Amino acid sequence: MSISSFTFEPWAAIHQQRVEAALDDTLPVVDIQPERLHAAMRYAVLGGGKRVRALLSYASAELLGAPASSADAAAVSVELIHAFSLVHDDMPCMDDDNLRRGKPSCHKQYGDATALLVGDALQSLAFQCIADTNAPQALKQVQVLAQATGSRGMCGGQDIDLQSTGKLLSREALENMHQYKTGALIRAATLLGAYAADSTEEIHINLLNQYSQNMGLAFQVVDDILDATADTQTLGKTAGKDALQEKSTYVSLLGIDEAKALVTTLYEQTLQSLAGFDTQADSLRGIARFICERPF
Amino acid sequence: MSISSFTFEPWAAIHQQRVEAALDDTLPVVDIQPERLHAAMRYAVLGGGKRVRALLSYASAELLGAPASSADAAAVSVELIHAFSLVHDDMPCMDDDNLRRGKPSCHKQYGDATALLVGDALQSLAFQCIADTNAPQALKQVQVLAQATGSRGMCGGQDIDLQSTGKLLSREALENMHQYKTGALIRAATLLGAYAADSTEEIHINLLNQYSQNMGLAFQVVDDILDATADTQTLGKTAGKDALQEKSTYVSLLGIDEAKALVTTLYEQTLQSLAGFDTQADSLRGIARFICERPF
Repeated sequence: MSISSFTFEPWAAIHQQRVEAALDDTLPVVDIQPERLHAAMRYAVLGGGKRVRALLSYASAELLGAPASSADAAAVSVELIHAFSLVHDDMPCMDDDNLRRGKPSCHKQYGDATALLVGDALQSLAFQCIADTNAPQALKQVQVLAQATGSRGMCGGQDIDLQSTGKLLSREALENMHQYKTGALIRAATLLGAYAADSTEEIHINLLNQYSQNMGLAFQVVDDILDATADTQTLGKTAGKDALQEKSTYVSLLGIDEAKALVTTLYEQTLQSLAGFDTQADSLRGIARFICERPF
Repeated sequence: MSISSFTFEPWAAIHQQRVEAALDDTLPVVDIQPERLHAAMRYAVLGGGKRVRALLSYASAELLGAPASSADAAAVSVELIHAFSLVHDDMPCMDDDNLRRGKPSCHKQYGDATALLVGDALQSLAFQCIADTNAPQALKQVQVLAQATGSRGMCGGQDIDLQSTGKLLSREALENMHQYKTGALIRAATLLGAYAADSTEEIHINLLNQYSQNMGLAFQVVDDILDATADTQTLGKTAGKDALQEKSTYVSLLGIDEAKALVTTLYEQTLQSLAGFDTQADSLRGIARFICERPF
């Protein structure tokens, strides 16, 4: 495996800027009606986040030799879905969190009713943005994204999470919950990038499925570790929330050391699914390393 | 114009049953995870409503000679979007309404957090259901539905409504609000049915645009009249809400008599846009009559 001259950080910076510009273009401007809703949508989406899901879309497209421009809609749509989930998740009837990406969360800034509509409108915009491309595999992208978002994906995971709060989950139940809650969208982000190519072979989808399944899980374990160890300022969101809400996490279940060991194992498995590729998989490898080495 | 042997009621009953069965098939069953969310989704969607939007999809498909089976996904998707909007609209942070279709609204039955997720998951399911058909014009359907749902459609209209409560709106501003809030989805329902055909001519889209614009407005004026004149039991939802919430309506703006006259004018304009069609437009004519003659 040659990781040779590739360095992840500049690649990530370029693509983070790329998706930020594409999001800015996609979101309605604030001087068209309804102005306040558009301002709130932009507030909820722009200028924050690591854009991991967008990076996965771009990196997958790169694996298959598709240009970044063909993956812009995929990258934008997964970030819109992610942003909508954060807005709704922060609302008083859900996690009731006042801080997001270092600033007041959307409902604190604009009120609950507008935050509800912001989330709803961001979800529609995600699908519209894919459909607007009229690309050969756009319908497949809609299908994958819709499934990952709905009751058998992210929304379902949040419901399982709600039902599980205060209960002691088995490791299997915890993994199942996270496959829905965060794993489904991580997988969709990866696959949408692959479907940004004009055509996609089944073998690539299978490998990217393996890659993203391990990545999604690693991502969640790292999140649990950070929630337990980092402070609110570093995270840009309220730290220590899991323990406070009596949520089962990989840390509460395995302890910090075993959780860290699990991340290492998942990282190695993630790399294994890319073993058949040369430099065209460098960006996917870089994302895996970035996720698994987030400082803790 | 020959309306000859066509009678609307049996046609409507057949297609209401048809969409009910299709919704039942599309909604996840309650014994797959997450069970409670699936039960709540089914509670919010099944067994209620006049299914006007679904009827519009079927009638449009019929106008273009497409079989009802080709319009099932369109009919289901517009009803799912409508149901999601009702669930979110009834929540305490929005209209705070405890009654819907004669039973406790979704958040009263399942709690606010689940209701929030129900609406989110119903929206995803609407897009998934269209994408799953893999039909020739499915991507166009996604595009039209997403635009009608988002900030430049239904969600935008709800935000304009929120910002307008307690203010005296001009007739122009009221019409503008309703074009977003209810008109956009009525229009989408009509167009999605047309795009259920394998191909669709621009001239048909233009006529259906005219039809649905007048229909959407008529629908809203009738709704305002009913809210002011019918009782809660007849409506299956809380009556007299508009006056209570100090909302501008066609009744508060024009008075009952002028509002009724407006419905008649809109009904005539709706029929005019179908003047070039023979019996294949009978179901669209029947829906217009049904809407405009709802007892008041």
